[in-house]
Amino acid sequence: MRAVILAGGSGTRLWPLSRQAFPKQFLPLLGQRSLFQQTVERVRPLVGDEVCVVATRDVAHLVDRQLRDLGIDPRGRVILEPVGRNTAPAVGVAALAAPADTVLLVLPSDHAVRDEDAFRSALERAAGAAAAGNLVTFGITPSRPETGYGYIQAGEPLPGFDGFRRVARFVEKPDLATARRYLDEGGYYWNSGMFAFRAGTILEELARHAPEVWAGVEALRNAVEAGGDLPANGYARIPKISIDYAVMERSERGVVLPVDPGWSDLGSFAALLGVLGRDEAGNAVRVDGLPLLEDSRGNLVWAGDKVVALVGMTDTVVVDTADALLVCPKDRSQDVRRVAEALARQGREEAVHHRTVHRPWGTFTTLEEADGHKVKRITVCPGQRLSLQLHHHRAEQWVVVRGTARVTRGDEVLDLTVGQTVHIPKGEKHRLENRGEGPVEIIEVQTGDYLGEDDIVRLQDDYGRTL
Amino acid sequence: MRAVILAGGSGTRLWPLSRQAFPKQFLPLLGQRSLFQQTVERVRPLVGDEVCVVATRDVAHLVDRQLRDLGIDPRGRVILEPVGRNTAPAVGVAALAAPADTVLLVLPSDHAVRDEDAFRSALERAAGAAAAGNLVTFGITPSRPETGYGYIQAGEPLPGFDGFRRVARFVEKPDLATARRYLDEGGYYWNSGMFAFRAGTILEELARHAPEVWAGVEALRNAVEAGGDLPANGYARIPKISIDYAVMERSERGVVLPVDPGWSDLGSFAALLGVLGRDEAGNAVRVDGLPLLEDSRGNLVWAGDKVVALVGMTDTVVVDTADALLVCPKDRSQDVRRVAEALARQGREEAVHHRTVHRPWGTFTTLEEADGHKVKRITVCPGQRLSLQLHHHRAEQWVVVRGTARVTRGDEVLDLTVGQTVHIPKGEKHRLENRGEGPVEIIEVQTGDYLGEDDIVRLQDDYGRTL
Repeated sequence: MRAVILAGGSGTRLWPLSRQAFPKQFLPLLGQRSLFQQTVERVRPLVGDEVCVVATRDVAHLVDRQLRDLGIDPRGRVILEPVGRNTAPAVGVAALAAPADTVLLVLPSDHAVRDEDAFRSALERAAGAAAAGNLVTFGITPSRPETGYGYIQAGEPLPGFDGFRRVARFVEKPDLATARRYLDEGGYYWNSGMFAFRAGTILEELARHAPEVWAGVEALRNAVEAGGDLPANGYARIPKISIDYAVMERSERGVVLPVDPGWSDLGSFAALLGVLGRDEAGNAVRVDGLPLLEDSRGNLVWAGDKVVALVGMTDTVVVDTADALLVCPKDRSQDVRRVAEALARQGREEAVHHRTVHRPWGTFTTLEEADGHKVKRITVCPGQRLSLQLHHHRAEQWVVVRGTARVTRGDEVLDLTVGQTVHIPKGEKHRLENRGEGPVEIIEVQTGDYLGEDDIVRLQDDYGRTL
Repeated sequence: MRAVILAGGSGTRLWPLSRQAFPKQFLPLLGQRSLFQQTVERVRPLVGDEVCVVATRDVAHLVDRQLRDLGIDPRGRVILEPVGRNTAPAVGVAALAAPADTVLLVLPSDHAVRDEDAFRSALERAAGAAAAGNLVTFGITPSRPETGYGYIQAGEPLPGFDGFRRVARFVEKPDLATARRYLDEGGYYWNSGMFAFRAGTILEELARHAPEVWAGVEALRNAVEAGGDLPANGYARIPKISIDYAVMERSERGVVLPVDPGWSDLGSFAALLGVLGRDEAGNAVRVDGLPLLEDSRGNLVWAGDKVVALVGMTDTVVVDTADALLVCPKDRSQDVRRVAEALARQGREEAVHHRTVHRPWGTFTTLEEADGHKVKRITVCPGQRLSLQLHHHRAEQWVVVRGTARVTRGDEVLDLTVGQTVHIPKGEKHRLENRGEGPVEIIEVQTGDYLGEDDIVRLQDDYGRTL
């Protein structure tokens, strides 16, 4: 058995918590660990380190760091897509990377599961049916007439596999009346986007029902076997299509296992509110600073280290981050994506990055941006270093506030400890490096008449970002 | 004629815009200038620079800076109360400071007036009646059954002064039914807290109706004549009482001039919303960054340089500052004071200061506070300097980002320009000074195991803050 963790997806409906460059699956929404990490940990008792993550290249550093944080070596376990092409190509390359007889448990990385034991028990049963050549889908027993999910109608029982039924049909997201009918009639289940099948089976079915996808995937065999960094030109040509649509809806080998493990796709703030712990007034409060809720009920309040006061508010989502604030009624939270999309259309940074921006070597946070100066906190992970670079329009002052920083400046190499400082003149090549065991942090004060991020000449870079 | 501007008052109902150390009258709520400055400018065509400001000592630097900003020399024009004792003592010392025949126009500094010409014309007429020995109150024609104000019932016409009427009685804030009755019956006016009387008249009436206040004020004659910095022990012993209660409600010389200049006391966010410009959906939006209002009506949205998105919100107050966020329905905005009071009880900084803290020499803003380091932006006004000081537990790195900073470090004196830096070791005496014409700004990076504001030994200080 191998878990195939699909770590793509941008999650605009949880903006401003999630951003294009830091989508919701990498956020610790339900505890100390990210949804992605929780997905891995949830299935690890079944598969150990037999994990294959498929993710787009722009989140590779997040996957890498979050796997290492779980004690899993990412090498050989991550397939990087140059661009997202939906789930059929992703599942295809993951299948190609596995022995044909391996049962793949395909799991999106941005879902919540309350009853992990029930969930794993369902996966184990599914693996049995998958080993016999079935394409297993997990149908979630619906608890309400939800119009945000597709449904699976269950058909005849599957002989020899207790509880499994053949798929009668997949249906698209219904309107409310239809969703109510499904709930009343029974036999309809939410399509969770989770699957189990043998690697060989899914490739056969791709070849049969989506030959263009299959051919595109097959053409990447060398890249997959060489380590999983997929070439841009090959991958981008594969049709952008979901595994549901490419295979599951067309194959005669589809079966559904009804399950009820307290599943949520966390597809909106209302859904998030549904799975978070609440206070006695029904408020879910995640505020690093001081929340003050007076006469307020049923709200989702999420913020950093500040005072957040609500007076007389009901059923409202209040999400505050360093650079963006969202306020909307809970029942309008599906429309949050429109805000994120509007920001993206305007080319605003707040659609793409948080105030803290993640880079392969660590993070930087802009503390202040003003006319003539900018202040950043830069954190370098152990063993990492920024590119050797220079700036034409700005000078920089670095003050080390944590760890020991190795600084290259021109021909000098300096090791600076906490409280020490170095001046980087305009035009001087320089580099910041962490050779220690813990993080290195510096405060950088830029001065100059132009302080844009694009004033950078990279002379050497460990992450291939030189031109 | 002389304007007496009462600049006390803490304005907890506009938290988090207003704070104890920076109350609403000093905020630019309705334009580029503060309410205090607008109050001064509004009356200046009548009185020129004949202005007397009464304020508590802890806002002296704000009064000083904001008067200078208007081109008014504060020297001899400001009376500093060691503590606030309500309006009767404040008016008393202002009267003591003026020649007995001077007509005083007593004006709170935190009100909005839409029709300034009508307002000034009313002040001029009031001055005439005041010169004849009347105590003139300005009664605002009520436009709604407001329960947040006291009312003045008008009596008989005042012979010889067209439009003036004797005060029949003052009434406390009424309940809604009573307020409705006042509106229906007519002859009731909102008590605006603005007055006109001769200095000699109000002192006589104080002596008659509030002899303890009068005696307390009279005992301060030397301090008032010496420049207006009132001694703590003397002032604090005067009864804490309003001029309304001490004199106006008891005197037989009270008259009311009904006026309708589009007045608001800005006593709540709902009141502020009432005087701000609105967009076509009725939203008043004051966001330095990017406001995104989707399908939202009638909201007050106030924030700094960030994205603020409202989706489907109606009649809601959303006020975001660097360290505190408030969300409440418009019709609950009277309850905001409960939040500010709760914070004050807990001893929280957010009740007292903004993220940017004002000092006599300028301001500082904490950009980041973390374990082991703190980053501040420090702005020094022209001609000002911080105390000569030292810290036992922290080292500091200063990077100049604006102007030329004169730095004293031990026995050295350095002049540093933009991009230059200086290290202040633990225990070293140091001072930052601005000898230029424009502001000086530095970024200060503190490192150490204790970074509290109280780790400061002041060796010399221009503002008397040494122990």
